[in-house]
Amino acid sequence: MPILEFLDYAGVAIFAATGALSASRKQLDIIGYLFLASATGIGGGTIRDLVLGATPVFWVVNPNFIIVCAAVAVAVFLTSHLLESRYRMLVWLDALGLSAYCVMGAAKGLAATGSPIVALVTGALTATFGGVLRDLLAGEPSVLLRPEIYVSAALIGAGAFVLASLAGLPLVATSALGVITAFAVRGGALRYGWTLPTGKAGPGRDPDDVM
Amino acid sequence: MPILEFLDYAGVAIFAATGALSASRKQLDIIGYLFLASATGIGGGTIRDLVLGATPVFWVVNPNFIIVCAAVAVAVFLTSHLLESRYRMLVWLDALGLSAYCVMGAAKGLAATGSPIVALVTGALTATFGGVLRDLLAGEPSVLLRPEIYVSAALIGAGAFVLASLAGLPLVATSALGVITAFAVRGGALRYGWTLPTGKAGPGRDPDDVM
Amino acid sequence: MPILEFLDYAGVAIFAATGALSASRKQLDIIGYLFLASATGIGGGTIRDLVLGATPVFWVVNPNFIIVCAAVAVAVFLTSHLLESRYRMLVWLDALGLSAYCVMGAAKGLAATGSPIVALVTGALTATFGGVLRDLLAGEPSVLLRPEIYVSAALIGAGAFVLASLAGLPLVATSALGVITAFAVRGGALRYGWTLPTGKAGPGRDPDDVM
Repeated sequence: MPILEFLDYAGVAIFAATGALSASRKQLDIIGYLFLASATGIGGGTIRDLVLGATPVFWVVNPNFIIVCAAVAVAVFLTSHLLESRYRMLVWLDALGLSAYCVMGAAKGLAATGSPIVALVTGALTATFGGVLRDLLAGEPSVLLRPEIYVSAALIGAGAFVLASLAGLPLVATSALGVITAFAVRGGALRYGWTLPTGKAGPGRDPDDVM
Repeated sequence: MPILEFLDYAGVAIFAATGALSASRKQLDIIGYLFLASATGIGGGTIRDLVLGATPVFWVVNPNFIIVCAAVAVAVFLTSHLLESRYRMLVWLDALGLSAYCVMGAAKGLAATGSPIVALVTGALTATFGGVLRDLLAGEPSVLLRPEIYVSAALIGAGAFVLASLAGLPLVATSALGVITAFAVRGGALRYGWTLPTGKAGPGRDPDDVM
Repeated sequence: MPILEFLDYAGVAIFAATGALSASRKQLDIIGYLFLASATGIGGGTIRDLVLGATPVFWVVNPNFIIVCAAVAVAVFLTSHLLESRYRMLVWLDALGLSAYCVMGAAKGLAATGSPIVALVTGALTATFGGVLRDLLAGEPSVLLRPEIYVSAALIGAGAFVLASLAGLPLVATSALGVITAFAVRGGALRYGWTLPTGKAGPGRDPDDVM
């Protein structure tokens, strides 16, 4: 499926770039770039394949994905000092990768099970796991805990893809719809600080209230 | 196996509630509740299925588990501000979930391999992984590092289940025994601060002694 | 393959010791030692088997690996207070485990796929994941973020093994070469503080530059 294969490579390359930028922010050596780029680039798809039982996972079956991660890591290693804000670049690339991967994950989940609910979860999991792993490994506060809409964008993009697929639209249309929807939501959240209402505050902050 | 199926749903729902309470403590939005509730609710069982090679994992085979996590997340989102201490509720629910899941994990490990040792490990892994994942994702200090008995309760509950199973007791009895044993141990630890002796202190705190 | 089986047991036992030493540094109870020793000892090999689709994973197939972790945890629990620096012991054992496991991982990856690139990745992943997991669970800064050469040593050791294998050397020679190469690199990095050049610093540290 060329469109999905394209999204797979795009998602891997873009997430790999965010991992390499995270390595750059930590001023790691080239191997640190390779490690974080690979973990971020292939992390989400690896979890997706594992839970679906699609093993060996995609990058074992097709090592080109590793080469993509390595090439991206080297390119970022050589150029990231030229960026005015590695952080801004990182979050916008992360938004793009999330948009590509929520469709990839939903497509594989839907194809494997036919269940829209599983497709939503594999879509959100594939789109967010790489970034969560990157932040854990780099010792950064998880993007999950930041206020603006993040996982929601992946869920909405996956949902748009699933609905369009159930409606029988062709794959190229459903994929484009899912990617554009997710990116519009995440991009709007970044640009305009969109947030969702948070849980009501309350008591439960009593002295012993530590974990 | 209705009793095990019940324990599976109970473990998922209870751990999902602890994840949602953790989201509440971090004042995340509804999607943050859904994410932490799902990761905590299905995390332990996912690892169990992966290491046993029982893929696709349980919630891919039966998406109802996802719906349970989502429903619990919404319920906690709407009501958690009413709790006097979300933390106290969280640790007691965590104790219940641990008790249900150590039996589930041990039962699946024993059924898959016949090895009591594997059953102990899958029991403890299933019972503790969800909580560990919750704390990692929420950026809370891991429950593993707290002084009172925790993993031990899961091991003892799994051990009671395994011994009773080897003794040929019926599944409903072995399951009840395992759950009650684990909850008694974890509950006692919470209520009375039971701890195990820690390793002898010693030197090795010299200046360079950082990691 | 006796040599690989030996390396597997050696890697598991040595990494288990580093996990137990980490528990000792945190002054955990015996169960904390068992948990961190097992997670660190079998973590890398578990990920390797999962991504290769070699499930059930190795310690489910052969529970002796769990017994090894438990025995090591008890031994460290009883003796670690005698060490002058648990930290120094930990990092040197970690270097040994890394050397054994990068070959194990590369060998399994090469046998499963025939792809040298996959072998490099499974080698590095197997060799480093246990330590990364240990640090995450123990709440220590990840060894990945320390300046001296670490992942590189695993990659170089795996690379030496792969090249020698492609050259047709016998398994015992390729394995010894990989282990010695990796340990020489990591040991030299520890002893002499070898580092690789880090990415150029640059702008992108502007006020909003947080993650």
